Amino acid sequence: MTKPDSTSLEYGITAPMGFVAGANSCGIKPSGSSDLAILHSTAGPCSAGAVFTTNRFASPTVRYCKSLVNTGRVRSVVINSGNANAATGQQGMQNTIDMATITAKLLGVEQNEVLVASTGLIGVPLPMEKIANGINNISLSPEAGPAAAQAILTTDKSPKHSSVEIALPTGRVRIGAMCKGAGMIHPNMATMLAFFTTDAHIETKTLQTLISEISDRTFNMISIDGDSSTNDMTVALANGASGVRLNPEDSGFQKFTEALSALAEHLAIEIVKGAEGATRVFEVTVNGASSMSDARSIARSITSSTLMKAAVHGADPNFGRTLCAIGYSEAIFNPNVVDLWIGNTQVMEQGIPIDFDESLASNHLEQPTSTLRVELHSGNYSATGWGCDLSTEYVSFNSEYST
Amino acid sequence: MTKPDSTSLEYGITAPMGFVAGANSCGIKPSGSSDLAILHSTAGPCSAGAVFTTNRFASPTVRYCKSLVNTGRVRSVVINSGNANAATGQQGMQNTIDMATITAKLLGVEQNEVLVASTGLIGVPLPMEKIANGINNISLSPEAGPAAAQAILTTDKSPKHSSVEIALPTGRVRIGAMCKGAGMIHPNMATMLAFFTTDAHIETKTLQTLISEISDRTFNMISIDGDSSTNDMTVALANGASGVRLNPEDSGFQKFTEALSALAEHLAIEIVKGAEGATRVFEVTVNGASSMSDARSIARSITSSTLMKAAVHGADPNFGRTLCAIGYSEAIFNPNVVDLWIGNTQVMEQGIPIDFDESLASNHLEQPTSTLRVELHSGNYSATGWGCDLSTEYVSFNSEYST
Repeated sequence: MTKPDSTSLEYGITAPMGFVAGANSCGIKPSGSSDLAILHSTAGPCSAGAVFTTNRFASPTVRYCKSLVNTGRVRSVVINSGNANAATGQQGMQNTIDMATITAKLLGVEQNEVLVASTGLIGVPLPMEKIANGINNISLSPEAGPAAAQAILTTDKSPKHSSVEIALPTGRVRIGAMCKGAGMIHPNMATMLAFFTTDAHIETKTLQTLISEISDRTFNMISIDGDSSTNDMTVALANGASGVRLNPEDSGFQKFTEALSALAEHLAIEIVKGAEGATRVFEVTVNGASSMSDARSIARSITSSTLMKAAVHGADPNFGRTLCAIGYSEAIFNPNVVDLWIGNTQVMEQGIPIDFDESLASNHLEQPTSTLRVELHSGNYSATGWGCDLSTEYVSFNSEYST
Repeated sequence: MTKPDSTSLEYGITAPMGFVAGANSCGIKPSGSSDLAILHSTAGPCSAGAVFTTNRFASPTVRYCKSLVNTGRVRSVVINSGNANAATGQQGMQNTIDMATITAKLLGVEQNEVLVASTGLIGVPLPMEKIANGINNISLSPEAGPAAAQAILTTDKSPKHSSVEIALPTGRVRIGAMCKGAGMIHPNMATMLAFFTTDAHIETKTLQTLISEISDRTFNMISIDGDSSTNDMTVALANGASGVRLNPEDSGFQKFTEALSALAEHLAIEIVKGAEGATRVFEVTVNGASSMSDARSIARSITSSTLMKAAVHGADPNFGRTLCAIGYSEAIFNPNVVDLWIGNTQVMEQGIPIDFDESLASNHLEQPTSTLRVELHSGNYSATGWGCDLSTEYVSFNSEYST
């Protein structure tokens, strides 16, 4: 295996030392596109942290991974796209275990060291023969990160992967990442999957806390259509191959956290940009909330509002809809002191709309990424969320496919 | 005043004895359509019950009415359309009190016996001179219920009003009703307003309980786009003009409750049908929940799902989206025993999709009103909710108006 250098950063999820990946076309997707990916640590077991969907119809892959992710023994992840293993009953769990078993055998590890993820059509049993064949004929390499990022897609416009190298006081470490889009962006295909790798050595508990916190302020702050999938998961693996140990009290830990957070935020926004029918993104920042949950609740309420999404699509500086969405969030605040800004244009002061240059605000909303800012003046907490506009293409896409 | 007879039922909100109404065109609406309505009890003070928006940017009309509705002294309601008194600061509250004062003077009652409602554009101060003029030049009559129902509309497709006469052991009573549409069906116009009148004599506390319960299972179970307005209110007035007293322990009380409930359900469904861009309605019934809030949560989750709305628009029997929406509701249940039906076609059994006749289910979804049924097998509670489809017209309407 080649040692990571400056050019290895283009390999995304396999940029960190001691990670290889592979992709294959099993024939799940009628197009013949790649639909199977494996991610593997050649440097031994990984500590892992993960965040899973809260949907009560959680897929067997989610339930399976939950039980294994924090063991400190994760070696590999096998992912299929094109057919979600969801709403598939007992057979679905058996298929999950079988995918892990076949992968484990190929890689010379144990079944319970292999995580499994699945995305695509809900309610259809997996074609296990094709998948077994695909696993057994896959080839893994440190250069195959981009191919893996391609193989996990469903209807995403383009692959989403990235990586970064960070110089810490104790040495250099790398973080790699890949994900696929959220938001039911195609009929029945709902799932957001995100994977992170690092060659830093991080304890399971620390990594779990880190990925939970970062997911809460990145992946959990985006909204395509408000529909939350059965198969969503974010998994971070740390194999320690760099020899650099990272503990929360280390001077380099904050830098590592910021780098991981920036990668997650970048990918989260890419997911919003890549949503089916989306033409623009709007970023909502809420300042001055009396709690973090209030700040997030308001940001999510605005980015999830169907009417806000339609207003952004029309570049319409419609403060009334924003005000409404703030008001029906679960947050507690004093409505009489709220200020609202669209880009650099203030449109509401102390809870009351003010005269503003509508064309200036409208021009701002026409940008690929526009910003809204809510100042609550009720405390010291801030949050940012991202939404996409709602276009007629979204509706056509999601209502006409079967006719 | 004419005594109610069989023909008086066509008068809607003024069908009950001792109620008069009036409508006027103040010039708030550029079209010149009527935009002011007054409802008045000529038979003395009413007991009243009401339900108000939970939006934290509640309009001054909502805050004003909250303080007066349960006094047992309500005589009148004045309503303007075309310009919502919302996000209007201290001036908004002063305008509300002024509307009540002018109306009270006209009718020879006290200001605090007059309720005030307002619907239309958010954030624009009311043109008080026009409104004062409109109030002072209104004429009231027992036949003007339909005119009042017309005057409270904003972009509703048609007026919504109804009435019923019920024979009780102690005499005949009447219930009248009118409402305007919910769901931000036009830019900036958000408000659902509903009014009920009856000539039965009902105590304030009883009427308040009744209207709260009925709103929870009717108006609070409809979803257009999930956006909840600043000005929503439902008000029920009982003037006792029939001389028939109704207490919860009376044998006729249940019959009265059922009649009021049926009227509310009828109007709630009319609101969904009349939503801008809506072409069909889907009714979701949830059975076997372990609590009423769980049953309602699931019904609302399904009727509010953007993807379900798009699927209904395409008459696509997409059980995956329904399953997803059930799963991300707040309800607690066992996913492995859930059955799902589209019309008379079962599509999921014990949490697993089953083979079904897709064209049969699709044909059912093409009906003006289709039905979905969820059987949770987790308890004895049931709830029903109503949603409309999401069409490209909705998006066009809500994104293109200002350009």
